[in-house]
Amino acid sequence: MRIAILAHEKFPDRAKTALGVLRYGDHDVAAVLDRDTAGKRVSDFVSDVQDAPIVAELADLEDEADELDALLIGISPIGGEFDESWRDDVRTALEYGCDVVSGLHYFLAEDEEFARLAEENGCELRDVRNPPEDLTVADGVAGEVDAEVILTVGTDCSVGKMTTTMELARDARQAGFDAAVIPTGQTGIMIEGWGNPIDRVVSDFTAGAVEEMITELGDEYDYLFVEGQGSIVHPAYSPVTLGILHGSMADKLVLCHEAGREAIHGYESFSLPSIPTYVDLYESIAEPVAEGRVVAGALNTAGLDDDAARQAVDEYAETLGAPATDVIRFDTDDVLEALR
Amino acid sequence: MRIAILAHEKFPDRAKTALGVLRYGDHDVAAVLDRDTAGKRVSDFVSDVQDAPIVAELADLEDEADELDALLIGISPIGGEFDESWRDDVRTALEYGCDVVSGLHYFLAEDEEFARLAEENGCELRDVRNPPEDLTVADGVAGEVDAEVILTVGTDCSVGKMTTTMELARDARQAGFDAAVIPTGQTGIMIEGWGNPIDRVVSDFTAGAVEEMITELGDEYDYLFVEGQGSIVHPAYSPVTLGILHGSMADKLVLCHEAGREAIHGYESFSLPSIPTYVDLYESIAEPVAEGRVVAGALNTAGLDDDAARQAVDEYAETLGAPATDVIRFDTDDVLEALR
Repeated sequence: MRIAILAHEKFPDRAKTALGVLRYGDHDVAAVLDRDTAGKRVSDFVSDVQDAPIVAELADLEDEADELDALLIGISPIGGEFDESWRDDVRTALEYGCDVVSGLHYFLAEDEEFARLAEENGCELRDVRNPPEDLTVADGVAGEVDAEVILTVGTDCSVGKMTTTMELARDARQAGFDAAVIPTGQTGIMIEGWGNPIDRVVSDFTAGAVEEMITELGDEYDYLFVEGQGSIVHPAYSPVTLGILHGSMADKLVLCHEAGREAIHGYESFSLPSIPTYVDLYESIAEPVAEGRVVAGALNTAGLDDDAARQAVDEYAETLGAPATDVIRFDTDDVLEALR
Repeated sequence: MRIAILAHEKFPDRAKTALGVLRYGDHDVAAVLDRDTAGKRVSDFVSDVQDAPIVAELADLEDEADELDALLIGISPIGGEFDESWRDDVRTALEYGCDVVSGLHYFLAEDEEFARLAEENGCELRDVRNPPEDLTVADGVAGEVDAEVILTVGTDCSVGKMTTTMELARDARQAGFDAAVIPTGQTGIMIEGWGNPIDRVVSDFTAGAVEEMITELGDEYDYLFVEGQGSIVHPAYSPVTLGILHGSMADKLVLCHEAGREAIHGYESFSLPSIPTYVDLYESIAEPVAEGRVVAGALNTAGLDDDAARQAVDEYAETLGAPATDVIRFDTDDVLEALR
């Protein structure tokens, strides 16, 4: 599938979905759209992902746009609104007959202009954050599957849960295990091509929507790596986190954190508790439903140099009393060992 | 408003909404519909609520049905589905020109026959569990309101959180305080005539939907009594509970429990943790967002005789290290004192 990824004014640091698809998706990326960094290439910013040119708007692709299968919205502002400055690109994509794939809370299929253009040009608006209609409450049975269920939990949003999930699943596969990812957010769903957007599921069905995915795959794999969301103490998103924790009935937890982060992103008046407090909170709130233990850590050290990163990871492991790594920068051997 | 309440095969013990409206609503109740107990009266089962005859079906009301304003669906099965054995009564109500008010997950307004009948007869289908369209994420500001925010939390579903909320608010008003209820579930909403059905809000907006109600009323009252839902360790509903806890940023918590309950209702393989564990869990998970302490307890002793009830409440208070009561059976003086 040949795609372009919209990431205006946010590539690469605030374009989590765009980066995730570049790194883990099996799409062929023709271009990233970012009017702020147009003219450069993905490889000017990030070295270990698929390279692609960065252009200011879809129309700049000219003839190449004709060969695109889809435009992916690769950024998601707080609240998940549609930014009107993206409208030209979405319109252009539809006029070229491209599908548009979006993880926004704002559903493109309900936008009158987009719906009309999609119909006229025979293409599809795919709102991956629009959950299926047939979800229901959890039965409390995810713990019965054969697979070891491993969940990434975090100290905050955007600390690396999705990345850690994808890296661990990939490395587990390379080590010869049958490992699947359980996608719970827009990026995971865009990468894997299936999944339930848990943050958009009604709160009564949150755990059930996770359980449904676990029981669907759980007897066919050795390991299920569940993409975690948010944080158990996030002022807005904690219900999503807890629904995934209880719905997955995870056996093992990997605590994800970003080196140096001290306050909730976007909610700076809320300080992060200590790492041991997070471990206690996740384990104690999990236990009455399923005894999930924090057995490893993943530290995002993107802001540090190599020496500082190594030291930060070592300190993080010591604090956790468990193996830790930066899944992008270092290997995952010790962490995978802890997950067996 | 003159109403009938549908509670087939579940009145009174499994008809929480029906009982709540009989006890706290200011509606004039013409009849309760329950084909299992038809011929008896509400007062044959429950003494301290509004009395009404119990009939097998709405058609039995004959001429009286003409004077009804609304039929309320007063029961809610696990999953919130519509039971087809209720269809005749809903149809009859609409044919008499009655509104039908429902807290089911299944929206009556989306049922083709009901929608047509409502239109033909000029009446309204009110699905109180259908949340408003304009909800969004929490800002983490509920803690800034002038009112003392008091939240009922529970060891399980159906242990008395709604009842405790209503009783404490009523008693606080009688003691001369400005007290309001923040309704978060179908029964609270039916009683109060407003509110957000938190269990039906998408999980990203759960905390925000509570925060919105708190900030709307928070500077006009001395006390806000927030109707809690579910339990922080419920295998299915914990996200609803946590969204209310973090979204309300409650100052004080009242822990509600039913004497003798040992397992999660409907999920009997899940044992309830100890009461001190619940206190720790609620306080520790609340603290990073807002420091809410368990300052009182409410014990549902409906299954016990008077002596056993008194003893159970005393033991519960001792375990909590805080005042406790059964809000239906005993007074709330000590509990209210602890909330000041």
